[in-house]
Amino acid sequence: MKALKDRIVKDGNIREGNVLKVDSFLNHQIDVNLLDEIGKEFKRRFEGEKINKILTIEASGIAIACIAARHFNVPVVFAKKSKTKNIAGDVYTSKVESFTHGRVYDIMVSKEFLNPEDHVLILDDFLANGQALLGLSQIVKDSGATVVGAGIVIEKGFQDGGKLLRESGLRVESLAIVDSMSVEEGVVFR
Amino acid sequence: MKALKDRIVKDGNIREGNVLKVDSFLNHQIDVNLLDEIGKEFKRRFEGEKINKILTIEASGIAIACIAARHFNVPVVFAKKSKTKNIAGDVYTSKVESFTHGRVYDIMVSKEFLNPEDHVLILDDFLANGQALLGLSQIVKDSGATVVGAGIVIEKGFQDGGKLLRESGLRVESLAIVDSMSVEEGVVFR
Repeated sequence: MKALKDRIVKDGNIREGNVLKVDSFLNHQIDVNLLDEIGKEFKRRFEGEKINKILTIEASGIAIACIAARHFNVPVVFAKKSKTKNIAGDVYTSKVESFTHGRVYDIMVSKEFLNPEDHVLILDDFLANGQALLGLSQIVKDSGATVVGAGIVIEKGFQDGGKLLRESGLRVESLAIVDSMSVEEGVVFR
Repeated sequence: MKALKDRIVKDGNIREGNVLKVDSFLNHQIDVNLLDEIGKEFKRRFEGEKINKILTIEASGIAIACIAARHFNVPVVFAKKSKTKNIAGDVYTSKVESFTHGRVYDIMVSKEFLNPEDHVLILDDFLANGQALLGLSQIVKDSGATVVGAGIVIEKGFQDGGKLLRESGLRVESLAIVDSMSVEEGVVFR
């Protein structure tokens, strides 16, 4: 998606440890007009698929999922990262190792909001080692619902998450795949 | 806002400890069409005000802020609740006591995304004791920017946050104010 790649080149910052900082438009400050274009593009790529729910994970996934969901006209469910007293009882859970935070955490979705009739599109901002996507897919499978596919804004193609997930049979649509990045060379897209 | 109040009556659940559970449409599963109506109503209430940025706090505030921001045609900034290695260096911070989680945490916004020229509308899902709103207002003031007002989806009118904040001079627009609630009587709106 050209507008997204242009924006990454213009406003993304490469930091040590393979961090691509896009917090001026994607995950701290949010350009909602760009997100609307991203939502339209996900809709175009999954056109014709039966999708009745979008699943994402807090926090920055929520922005992408909600604006995209307006184009699909379906509700969003977001997985939570920590127990709150507002989530009662029955939940599907999975463990996720976070690349950004360098720790393992539990994610959970209330059993009320996923059921075997659901056809679920998973959306998230980044795909790197694929742990978040694996955890979300596992939760959908545990509920008996169907994973239609996953839409990712930025995939780090030099990490193995995308390859592993596609080989496992999951349809993964990434709007920008970064094959390499460095302060000297900048971002190289696939 | 009638559609919102009707939905609270229909799908809200009252739990002990003055918890109003609205996670089937507002903060776990999200009805994006209802949120779009909520966004339109915030736009109507703040019509004529100069607003160039919307500030909220993760996680469920992000959904409301992003869909509302489409009507204001401005970017969203969301305050983060914990340090991540993706937020570098200079941040505005404030301490917030969470009603939901029963603990004190730090919220932070990168100094890059708030500056003295900004006219900021703060949006959030709940207003109870007002701590989150106070923390967000403090961050805006610390940056030298102007707080135009606050838009709240559900205010718990039986807690004192709304009263204190309005008395301090902040314009607070709540789309549903709950004056009392109990399992026996249900929800009573102001």
